[in-house]
Amino acid sequence: MERIGFIGLGLMGKPMAKNLLKAGYAVTVFNRSRAAMDQLADMGAQVANLPSQVAQQSDVVLTCLPDSPDVEAVVLGENGILSGSRPGMLYVDHSTIAPATSRKLYDALKLSDVDALDAPVSGGDIGAQQGTLSIMVGGDEVAFERSLPILQTLGKNIIHIGDAGAGQVTKACNQIVVAMTVQAVAEALTLAKKSGVDPVKVRDALLGGFAQSRVLEVHGQRMIDRVFQPGFKLNLHRKDMNIVLQTGKELNLPLLGAAQVTELINAMIAQGKGELDNSALITLYEILGGMD
Amino acid sequence: MERIGFIGLGLMGKPMAKNLLKAGYAVTVFNRSRAAMDQLADMGAQVANLPSQVAQQSDVVLTCLPDSPDVEAVVLGENGILSGSRPGMLYVDHSTIAPATSRKLYDALKLSDVDALDAPVSGGDIGAQQGTLSIMVGGDEVAFERSLPILQTLGKNIIHIGDAGAGQVTKACNQIVVAMTVQAVAEALTLAKKSGVDPVKVRDALLGGFAQSRVLEVHGQRMIDRVFQPGFKLNLHRKDMNIVLQTGKELNLPLLGAAQVTELINAMIAQGKGELDNSALITLYEILGGMD
Repeated sequence: MERIGFIGLGLMGKPMAKNLLKAGYAVTVFNRSRAAMDQLADMGAQVANLPSQVAQQSDVVLTCLPDSPDVEAVVLGENGILSGSRPGMLYVDHSTIAPATSRKLYDALKLSDVDALDAPVSGGDIGAQQGTLSIMVGGDEVAFERSLPILQTLGKNIIHIGDAGAGQVTKACNQIVVAMTVQAVAEALTLAKKSGVDPVKVRDALLGGFAQSRVLEVHGQRMIDRVFQPGFKLNLHRKDMNIVLQTGKELNLPLLGAAQVTELINAMIAQGKGELDNSALITLYEILGGMD
Repeated sequence: MERIGFIGLGLMGKPMAKNLLKAGYAVTVFNRSRAAMDQLADMGAQVANLPSQVAQQSDVVLTCLPDSPDVEAVVLGENGILSGSRPGMLYVDHSTIAPATSRKLYDALKLSDVDALDAPVSGGDIGAQQGTLSIMVGGDEVAFERSLPILQTLGKNIIHIGDAGAGQVTKACNQIVVAMTVQAVAEALTLAKKSGVDPVKVRDALLGGFAQSRVLEVHGQRMIDRVFQPGFKLNLHRKDMNIVLQTGKELNLPLLGAAQVTELINAMIAQGKGELDNSALITLYEILGGMD
């Protein structure tokens, strides 16, 4: 079994690292704050002091970090993964970051004969805990095949999409569709409510036809129940939408709907609601419609 | 069995009337143009010369017409349904029109002891042919119960949503969600394509998670195959979105996403693409992104 390194023990990373330990992998961990590392150490993980040390002790290094600059620093920065790597090491990044950054890391690591995969996940902390994440992978086929036994410990819907960056592009596409579908359901259910029509029945009726979506099912129910605990926080969704819009700009592709819903998420954050689930977007429509 | 009248033998109305005949109902039909009436007459339908005549010969009168003014004229106008009605008659409107118009007709017919249901459908011409339409019904419970054996001949997902107009409000909600989801999928698949990532794999990956929708499944496939035969024509979707936006205005509810996608549909129609399926919206993004 390959020796695994795991950097970034947050809401997603911690349960992912635990699942690797449970599957019998030797895991070396690093995290900015100590508490999560101690928890993993209690389960048998080795603790490292620096990302470079993780790399030195591992055949495959996984990261799960907040944003592009974090990943770039941990990989290319001082005492980073690259500085501790040797030829033949595999690097797998589960963070959701800019496709351009993933391609840059792929190129930089390739020069040192380190393979890199961008492998962002979806499925939330529950998917991470249960090992049922969807994983969208970009990078070389050989590296993907090598990673597969490890990724199968973390998720179940694992797709090799294409070259370096393709996993991140797919995640960006995913976040566009989720955000705009949440907005669509919020508009529809608010229209129903302000018309005096029961949103419960509207949701039921719509689930039977072309308006059906997982968002209508799950987030629609949250909007009806007014349960806005995350789930997926608006603060994180905005971070991902900024990646989407930045990527659109680099490509000169105007993403009108994605831009609009991002501005609505900005408005939610301006109201101090950034830590709520994205389904809370419906409350913005209620304010706009004078219903609060 | 109740004697049925059917007015409006278009793409949807004709197969619906046929299904009623096949189920053994005596059906009297009226249509502006003669050809469809002759076809129904060959199957055993009675042909009337005026909407009022349909009403005189029927216990339950169904309409399936293009837009609010058409329905209002056929019901309340000279030689309309109301003028041929008697107390106890039931009127069921399968058209997609403004909720305000449905409520106005309900009130006007109530004065003559005629019950009215707004019962817009979704499922397209194939659903109409196969008798598998979804039917969203507004109006009195007693009238709904009376209509049920008839509606079960036409569809299978039949829901009584609420009072008069509630069916139309539900259909408006449906059209918002479908339009915005089509737009979301169009943005996502164009982003993939312009990034050099295979939209087929992106669609597959997204169908496994929270981005899943019937639109991603069906319209996403159409976008990939570039098969834009309707389906649901942009011209008709714009008509429905105009009802959505008009209803939003009456309620003072700003429907930002619905408004934006309606403008994009306007742009499609300006390019002479109004008779294409709404999935053709992706071609607008390709133009905006300089990809055509």
